[in-house]
Amino acid sequence: MATATYTVKGMTCGHCVSSVKEEVGEVAGVTSVEVDLAGGLLTVGSDSPIDSAKIIAAVEEAGYEVVNPA
Amino acid sequence: MATATYTVKGMTCGHCVSSVKEEVGEVAGVTSVEVDLAGGLLTVGSDSPIDSAKIIAAVEEAGYEVVNPA
Repeated sequence: MATATYTVKGMTCGHCVSSVKEEVGEVAGVTSVEVDLAGGLLTVGSDSPIDSAKIIAAVEEAGYEVVNPA
Repeated sequence: MATATYTVKGMTCGHCVSSVKEEVGEVAGVTSVEVDLAGGLLTVGSDSPIDSAKIIAAVEEAGYEVVNPA
């Protein structure tokens, strides 16, 4: 089990959280996605570590930006 | 042609705008819905005037609040 945390910029509401969860959840290997809206924190769980570039790309696909990749 | 303008509280992003447009657009008689996110302005067009209570209810259904009904 691996967990990585990212800080995401630009999420303002529950809809934003849903968009990020949906896109990140579609990345191969991701088993869990948690988002803390207030802190802009994205926590991604997986069985084995995932290339952070894939997570960053998914966040960008959702329309947001990772400001400090893990 | 009638137009009514409302101020809506709580919209923070384009997803919020979409939600409000969708719900208000489903109100019987509504022919156009415009939302200005920065100003929180909702402008509703219709062929004949619509009971503002119906628009307010639709906004609440979307998860937001009208602060000064027309």
